[in-house]
Amino acid sequence: MTNVSIIGIGQTDVREHWETSIRHLAWYAIEAALDDAHHHQVDAIYVGNMLAGQLSNQNHLGALVADFAGLRGVEAMTVEAADASGGAAFRQAVLAVQSGLVETALVVGVEKVTDETGATVLAALATSLDADYEAIHGQTLSGAGALLMRRYMHTYGVTLADFAGFSVNAHANGAANPRAMYRNRLKPEAFAAAPMVADPVSLFDEAPAGDGAAAILVTSSERAADMVAQPVRVAASALATDAVALHDRRDLLWLSAAERSAQRALAAAGVTLDEIDVAELHDSFTIMAALSLEACGFAARGEGWTLARDGHIRRDGRIPISTFGGLKARGNPMGATGVYQLVELTQQLRGKAGDCQIANARTGLAQNLGGMGATAVTHVLSRD
Amino acid sequence: MTNVSIIGIGQTDVREHWETSIRHLAWYAIEAALDDAHHHQVDAIYVGNMLAGQLSNQNHLGALVADFAGLRGVEAMTVEAADASGGAAFRQAVLAVQSGLVETALVVGVEKVTDETGATVLAALATSLDADYEAIHGQTLSGAGALLMRRYMHTYGVTLADFAGFSVNAHANGAANPRAMYRNRLKPEAFAAAPMVADPVSLFDEAPAGDGAAAILVTSSERAADMVAQPVRVAASALATDAVALHDRRDLLWLSAAERSAQRALAAAGVTLDEIDVAELHDSFTIMAALSLEACGFAARGEGWTLARDGHIRRDGRIPISTFGGLKARGNPMGATGVYQLVELTQQLRGKAGDCQIANARTGLAQNLGGMGATAVTHVLSRD
Repeated sequence: MTNVSIIGIGQTDVREHWETSIRHLAWYAIEAALDDAHHHQVDAIYVGNMLAGQLSNQNHLGALVADFAGLRGVEAMTVEAADASGGAAFRQAVLAVQSGLVETALVVGVEKVTDETGATVLAALATSLDADYEAIHGQTLSGAGALLMRRYMHTYGVTLADFAGFSVNAHANGAANPRAMYRNRLKPEAFAAAPMVADPVSLFDEAPAGDGAAAILVTSSERAADMVAQPVRVAASALATDAVALHDRRDLLWLSAAERSAQRALAAAGVTLDEIDVAELHDSFTIMAALSLEACGFAARGEGWTLARDGHIRRDGRIPISTFGGLKARGNPMGATGVYQLVELTQQLRGKAGDCQIANARTGLAQNLGGMGATAVTHVLSRD
Repeated sequence: MTNVSIIGIGQTDVREHWETSIRHLAWYAIEAALDDAHHHQVDAIYVGNMLAGQLSNQNHLGALVADFAGLRGVEAMTVEAADASGGAAFRQAVLAVQSGLVETALVVGVEKVTDETGATVLAALATSLDADYEAIHGQTLSGAGALLMRRYMHTYGVTLADFAGFSVNAHANGAANPRAMYRNRLKPEAFAAAPMVADPVSLFDEAPAGDGAAAILVTSSERAADMVAQPVRVAASALATDAVALHDRRDLLWLSAAERSAQRALAAAGVTLDEIDVAELHDSFTIMAALSLEACGFAARGEGWTLARDGHIRRDGRIPISTFGGLKARGNPMGATGVYQLVELTQQLRGKAGDCQIANARTGLAQNLGGMGATAVTHVLSRD
């Protein structure tokens, strides 16, 4: 089995990039990743993207991005799994290198969401739900998040204010990340007083969709050791799915795909949860952060929110999450989000996370979710 | 290196499936493939699809299709490369099995195009072109095909009627395929007299977009030998790209991605063109069939059309193409087309192609193109 390592990373700011086309965004991230690796030869490109067809009238991003980044001719394609597209694309790059047929693979997550008006974007984002049984009735991502959150509050006797710690932590970390969409700190009182998007999901509960691109260059660990000073090893990679529609799930409050992919990844990496120094989870809503913590095993069922209440998710806590702001403050560039998570984890493991740095980060976990968790991709990265 | 073999195939008719949802189409093809293999355990699903987000308001097909096909939980994602999505998805399945991390992979190409009205479909199909430099000016697939065809006619002194042989052959073969969208034979006179879509591309020149799904189950050749009586080996797999916009290409009349992927595939398979008994090429337009024949090396530059004129592409010819009707008569279910090609090639190599059978087919080539050839995926299959 070929081991795979990360040798280059790049990213753009996450924000409203009205003046920048989708191909430019991808190029900026790719160029940064290639420069970071001091290596400009690529055998295959996996583009993580969800919405270019709907919001930019552009499918076929693989060939387009390859050409614009100066890599015309290279194998390239798009991988899509809603907002887990980035993580799924990274998984394909890992498999490609492990197959022995691709020497150096480039992953680029790219998304441009903010050019279109609200209703168009809402409908486009809802394509991650079940079109025939959820979206057609007017269900939106925020509405689906509200259903989960309300059920959780009811079942476990948790109040709205109990979720504040997730957003407060994300914004505190985002304030230290120059790439973050929101760099303002958030007070618990402000969280509790925020206007509702879909009760009980509020403005400071749901992560904002943003534009951005992030890129990662991977190759075999054997080659990586000769190429860069600080390769970061992909210790494990796993993807699992669940029913897309919430009403089809066996248990509304259990992310079975997240559990399954996390268990597989931890087993393959041969590490226990105690050895995970930092985790980038998919905090598209505070409820998703809570449910991910539970599904991964960081908290018991119904108790994910207590990790936020008790400060365990902070940079100096037991299991730091959203260390660069997470989806909530760094922003959620949908199909690119999973690649941002892995770029940030790499920064942590290299010890190059700047003001976002976690002390002694040796092993990290990233979990990227699609829709309301119907796709879950978990990667474990390790500093050797 | 793990060798990969096909152990099951399935397909639906290609036609206007107004009464059938996209998840049903996918399920029908998957069920047929699993039944064909007498094997119902799958480790990963690669969905080839281009247009569900735009035309069915449904992204996230991986999880959706896995669940609906009774495979909830399984790793699943969508692979997109315009109308080369199916071929690209198959390539990912091959890499996944070769990595050693996925034992049995399922590829399902699925597309539902005909529910929407003409203008919506035209715009959706044009997302395979360059949105910012082609489609925004009103360019369509037919228009792009017309540009290529006119230039070819001008450069090589070829007339419209000289292309008739491609469509006549496709319809003759489609008439023998019970799954084909069009089963009527076509006379050369009818081709020459057809109404224009985008001069010189006529109604009988351009392949019709249709709905359909096709599925393939693959596993390691070692396991395949114990599982089925007639495994078909994936002798080689290669994907290459080119500039998306026609005006960006170095040579308008040369499909460099098709050439590159074909050369790589032939070299990896260790076979020469003479050993290819049957080829499924991407005849989305007659000009694309001619250019593919040239790029693969079956004809000299500017002479691809002569293979049609001289009958060499017929079932009893030197290099039979479109043996089940090709895109022109079987129909072009965009993101599913590449999987149909491979299903048909498998039927040929098993000797189970019915009235479409080529005598003594041992080695076959499939080439799936995206847009106007900006993506090209070439596979070589072999009967051991």
